[in-house]
This record gives sequence, structure tokens and C-alpha cells, in this order.
Amino acid sequence: MTERTTSTAVGCPRGFIAAGTACGIKASGADDLALILAPKGATAAAMFTRNLVKAAPIVISQQKIGASRGRFRALVINSGCANAATGEQGFANADAVMDALAAHLKCDSNEALMNSTGVIGEHLSSQLIIDALPKLIASCSESGLARAAAAIHTTDTRLKMAERTVSHGGRTCRVVGIAKGAGMIHPNMATTIGVIMTDAKVDVPALDHMLRSAVDRSFHRITVDGDTSTNDSVFLLASGEAGEFPESILAPAITQVARELAEMVVRDGEGAAKLIRVRVSGAASPADALQVAQTVASSLLVRTSVAGGDPNWGRILAAAGRSGVGIDPDIVALRVNDLPLFADGKPAGTPKRALEKAYASDEVILDIDLHQGDASDEFLTCDLTEGYVRVNADYTS
Amino acid sequence: MTERTTSTAVGCPRGFIAAGTACGIKASGADDLALILAPKGATAAAMFTRNLVKAAPIVISQQKIGASRGRFRALVINSGCANAATGEQGFANADAVMDALAAHLKCDSNEALMNSTGVIGEHLSSQLIIDALPKLIASCSESGLARAAAAIHTTDTRLKMAERTVSHGGRTCRVVGIAKGAGMIHPNMATTIGVIMTDAKVDVPALDHMLRSAVDRSFHRITVDGDTSTNDSVFLLASGEAGEFPESILAPAITQVARELAEMVVRDGEGAAKLIRVRVSGAASPADALQVAQTVASSLLVRTSVAGGDPNWGRILAAAGRSGVGIDPDIVALRVNDLPLFADGKPAGTPKRALEKAYASDEVILDIDLHQGDASDEFLTCDLTEGYVRVNADYTS
Repeated sequence: MTERTTSTAVGCPRGFIAAGTACGIKASGADDLALILAPKGATAAAMFTRNLVKAAPIVISQQKIGASRGRFRALVINSGCANAATGEQGFANADAVMDALAAHLKCDSNEALMNSTGVIGEHLSSQLIIDALPKLIASCSESGLARAAAAIHTTDTRLKMAERTVSHGGRTCRVVGIAKGAGMIHPNMATTIGVIMTDAKVDVPALDHMLRSAVDRSFHRITVDGDTSTNDSVFLLASGEAGEFPESILAPAITQVARELAEMVVRDGEGAAKLIRVRVSGAASPADALQVAQTVASSLLVRTSVAGGDPNWGRILAAAGRSGVGIDPDIVALRVNDLPLFADGKPAGTPKRALEKAYASDEVILDIDLHQGDASDEFLTCDLTEGYVRVNADYTS
Repeated sequence: MTERTTSTAVGCPRGFIAAGTACGIKASGADDLALILAPKGATAAAMFTRNLVKAAPIVISQQKIGASRGRFRALVINSGCANAATGEQGFANADAVMDALAAHLKCDSNEALMNSTGVIGEHLSSQLIIDALPKLIASCSESGLARAAAAIHTTDTRLKMAERTVSHGGRTCRVVGIAKGAGMIHPNMATTIGVIMTDAKVDVPALDHMLRSAVDRSFHRITVDGDTSTNDSVFLLASGEAGEFPESILAPAITQVARELAEMVVRDGEGAAKLIRVRVSGAASPADALQVAQTVASSLLVRTSVAGGDPNWGRILAAAGRSGVGIDPDIVALRVNDLPLFADGKPAGTPKRALEKAYASDEVILDIDLHQGDASDEFLTCDLTEGYVRVNADYTS
């Protein structure tokens, strides 16, 4: 049985503690450093960006997690600087932070990981982080997770935390996740920074399997702007303190947490006011369903029309028509929030006022039935507003 | 020898006349109907959108130009309504216009073509066009081309006309083109409405070959928003009145006119203030060069940073890294307007003030040398501004 809790600020599962602080990387003085700690150790799986331009901490952490075979002690994440495209100095800066962290914790250097997020191409002031580590470690607690979640924000405007409690045979375990991300969101691996923790006991191969399955149905099904980052990563950590749980019960909870975090990322998309849910059904294959859903969700014209509350649905059809999938416009059916838009090759004739009301909703659901088979898929995006341009035109200034 | 003329409003080549008028489709009362006429006939080649959702006039015109084997008399184009996704009624409306046009001109019905541009999914008031035809035909003249070019505008803000004069053996011929397009611009065939005319004598296979070559180096190398339309088409028409010219002389002039028109489309991109020229060199293959150039030119984050004059060049590198091409970040070199941004795996150290000046230019040239081979390519786009969102959020309202 899985139970959903609704509090926005949730604590760590047993076996984890966390903290956040301001170490001085962000000129604003906002929190910019987070630490997640498993004092007695944990198992870990991770997925990293497929972008060929990878940030130094990502390259090193990927190596470390392989070398330690998934043994984990700590993850430090800074915001305000991505430490990507920074050459040898970038690697030296990331190494210095991770080495200092491992020394403080007296753990194997492969068990202390790092990620960074922020501007690409600027050098990280690693000494600021190293100086802040002793106090940060000392301040870690179960309730420190919310501040850690906020400290990894860049252009995020809302805290992203999700939680599930799993019961089995009179015992319970928890699955708790945090994420950041509001731009550079597109499914080409991970597309955010996410950390999901559980106190269940899970070996590394099972963790890896559950993480891949969860990400495929969450972070790989969202787009904000088609760009993917140099620093994307999602971690799944298990402390083991709650004992073993069947994968058939634990895996759905992990997927649910990942999906909830992914939806939060889209809802907090840069400048976004509305969630757009693109649902494709009747596709000849799962690949077709995904491709049409992703193409429509990525269309700037679809997303701007939702921003304007303008039911210009021809753009949905035009995007499907260029998706590369062999759709047949004569049998495709379109609906918005259950109102018919297009069927039998022609406009469905729903009054424009009703369509405008649907387009004005907080959540605009676009249903596309290809009438070619049984496969379906779903993709999430947000409306594209002038606010998106404002946020991104001046990011480094 | 090819000579470039710079006047913005140019007349038709010999053998063509044109006119534009307001027939009442646009509620604003602006011109919305254009006619291009070859009174003694011409040869024609055309390329049409690859979108599977094709407008009725496009489907019919494609059939007609095949049936007539490239014999051409007239092309009527309306703006304000795309007549796409309009079912059987859409076909009947387009047929009625083309039949009326052929009847007035007393030509074979396959020689009278049509295209439409505007909102998708609304029915065309074909009777408005049919009623306007007699006066429109009577008003056609060599100097009427500028008004015809303006009458096909949708969100365009500037007239798009280009011209070359070709001399050979004491004789001259002209190549004159018009185009529309400011959004739904992406290279998946044609991506605009364009009409290029010459008074040279050219048979249909040679026309077809020159058109494909010209479009591949012009309209297939621009992007405004990644969306392609249901109505895209480019026509190349030859009246023959100037006699024959070697293809080696004529083809470059046609390509130059197409490139100039394509660049005008990008410069007039919805909300755009700046041209972005993405040049990739040192690629292992032409396909690699094109893919990197297109990915960077399509990046919303690159385009918004140019809009803001913010030299956040890490986004260029991140876009190249996700392009699918096996770039090596350690040897890639980036420059903006000849200023070094990134080389040898690290920031080049050019002062930010100099970079900000480059990003503030009317034309921002991004050079990406992959250092993997000899292939190169170039792609054009424009900055992504709040104006783009404003134009598209409320298009039908």
C-alpha cells in the first residue's frame, strides 16, 4: 500500500540527514550549497546527462559511483555556477571539494559526490565551498531537507519535494525526493538535478533498474525548452534502515515520486503559468506515440497559443503532421479538455467561447487520437510566455 | 555576369504581370489577395511542404503542376486563411477559386494554381476571392509585383523582394523573387511562400534542378521557431522571353535570390531584432556540420541570450553537445563576431564588455570550429524576444 502525504516541506527518510546554506557563490546572498548525508552509508544509483559537454563534477561523480560500486556517503550540490566548460581547472576545483568532503567524513573518496548548477563557462570558487563544509556538515538534520532543496535552485520559484509512504507486512518505508529545474528541460537523460531517497534496503542492481524505469516515465517525459544541460543528474539512494521491501511495491512509489517531481519542474517552467498535458492515443507503436507527443509538446506555436488562451488548434495538427510519424489527417481526432477540436478531417465546430475557456485553464489537456493502433504516451510541458524570454535574455547579467 | 540591384520594390521580369488587392478575408481591410500571371504562359517547378497535414490548395496545386507537366499560366495567393484542416469543403473552396481563375484566363484548369496562408482550421470565404478576380486580373502589371508581395503577408512587417540581372553574350535576363514568412519557419521543405520568376527560357527538368539546389542553400537553412507549416511552397517560373542562358550562369543568380529572400524572412522573424548566423566548420561530414548548425540555431536559450545581449556562450556549447554529433569539447573552438569565446576546453578569457558589444550587434555571427574535419555549413535564425511570444499568443484573437 502506498500513501501520499501532502506537506510541502518533508523530512529525510531514516538514515539520511541534510542541510543547506549560503556560501557566497550567488552574489545575491541566497542559499547556494546543499548537502545530503548518509552517516552510516547507503547504496546509490544515478543517471547523468547525455550531453557530450559534461560538467567536471558530473564526469568525476560518474567515475566515483562506478568505482565504489554504488556505495554512497554524501552528495554536495552548489548552485550559482555549473563548473562546465571550465577545462582542467574545473576538474581540479571539483576534486578539491569532494576530497575535502571525504576527509571531513573520513570516508572513501569515491563515496563523496558532487554536482553543480548555474552558469556554464565560469570558474567555481571552490574555496568558498570548502570553507563552508564543516558548519554545513554539523548542521545536517532530518528536517534540513527543505533548505537543501531550496539551496539547489537557480531560476526555480517553488520548492520541489515529493513523498510516498509504503506499507508492507506491518512495516513502512518512505520515498522522498527533491528536484530543481525550470529551464534547459528536455528528455535526453535526466534533464534536472533530482535526488530520491528511501530507507528501504535495496541492492545496487535493483536500485539502478527502478531508477531507470522511474526516470523513463517522469523526467524523460517533460520539456520546457528543448535544451538539455551539461549538469543533469538524478540520484536514487537507499539507506536500508527500514529493511527490505518487494520491488513490486517499492518501484511504483519511486516512479510516483519521480513523476510528481517532474510535473513540479514543468509547472515551475521559466515564465510558465499553465501546465500542458499532451496525450497521444491510437498510435501504431509506442515510439510513434512518444514522437507525436514530444513534437506537439515542443512546438513553440502550440505553447504560445496556450499562453495567450487562444484556441488556435490548427497548430497542434500542424505539429503532429511534421513529427515524422505517418499520421493520417483524415482520421486524427483532437480534443482540448475533452472538447472536440477536429475530427473526420475537419473542424469539430465546438463554439470558440467554450474552447477559449478550456485554453484559459490552469491545466490544458490536449488529446490526440491517431486512430492507427493501440499505443499511447503522454508528455508534459508548460505555456511559453514573455516571462520565459525575460528570464533567459538576461541570465548572466 | 550577375548584377545586383538594390531597389526594394522591383518589377516583374518580362512575360509576367502581377497585382494585389483587398478582397475582404482580413477583417482589418488590409490587402489579402495576390495574383501572378504569365499571359503567354511559362514553365514552372515547385516544392511543397513535407508536413503530412497539407492545405487543400497545396494538395490540388501539386496535382495540377504534375498533370500539366510544368505548364503555368497563373498563381493566386490569399492571406488571412490557410484553408488547411478544412476537409472536403476546403477542397471545394480551393477548386472553385482555381476553376474561376482558369475560366477568366481561358486556360487549361491545370495551369491555374493557388496557395493560401493564415489561420489553420478555418473555412475560406472563396466567394470573396471569386468576386475579386475580374478586377484583380485587369489590374495586373509589371509594376504590380510589390503590391502582390505585400498582399501575401501574414505577420510579416517588411516587404521581401530580391532581384538579380544576368548578362551573357550581350543579352540580359532577370531573376526576381518575392516571399512571405515570419513564423512557422523551419527547414522541412520550403518553409515559406516564395515565388521566383525569370524571363530566361528554361525547360522544366532544369527549372526543377535549379529550384531544389537553390532552396537547399536558402530556405532549408533558416529557422524561426522549429514549426513548419501546412502551406509552405516555393515556385520557380520561367517565361522564356529573354531566350536561353547557360545553367552555370542562371543557377547562381536563382540561388542568390533565394538566399536573399530567406535571409529577409529571418530578419523579419516574429519579434526579431537581430540576425544570428551560425557557422560550423571543421566537421567530420557535411551532415555533422548541418546538424550542429541547426541545433545551435534552434536553441531557445541561445536565441534568448542574443535577444538580451547577454554573452552566455556556454549555451552554444551545451546545444552543440546535445546535437547528436560526436563533438569533442576539448578541441571545439567558439567565437562570436571573431572574438574568442572558448578554446582548448576552457573559456578564452575575452573581456565581458567586448563580448557584450558583439552580442549587441544587429548581426551576431557564432563560429563553431569542431576541429574534426573539413566540412562546413551555415544556418540562420533570429533572436527570440518577448515580441515573438506577444505575436503568437494572440494570433487568432
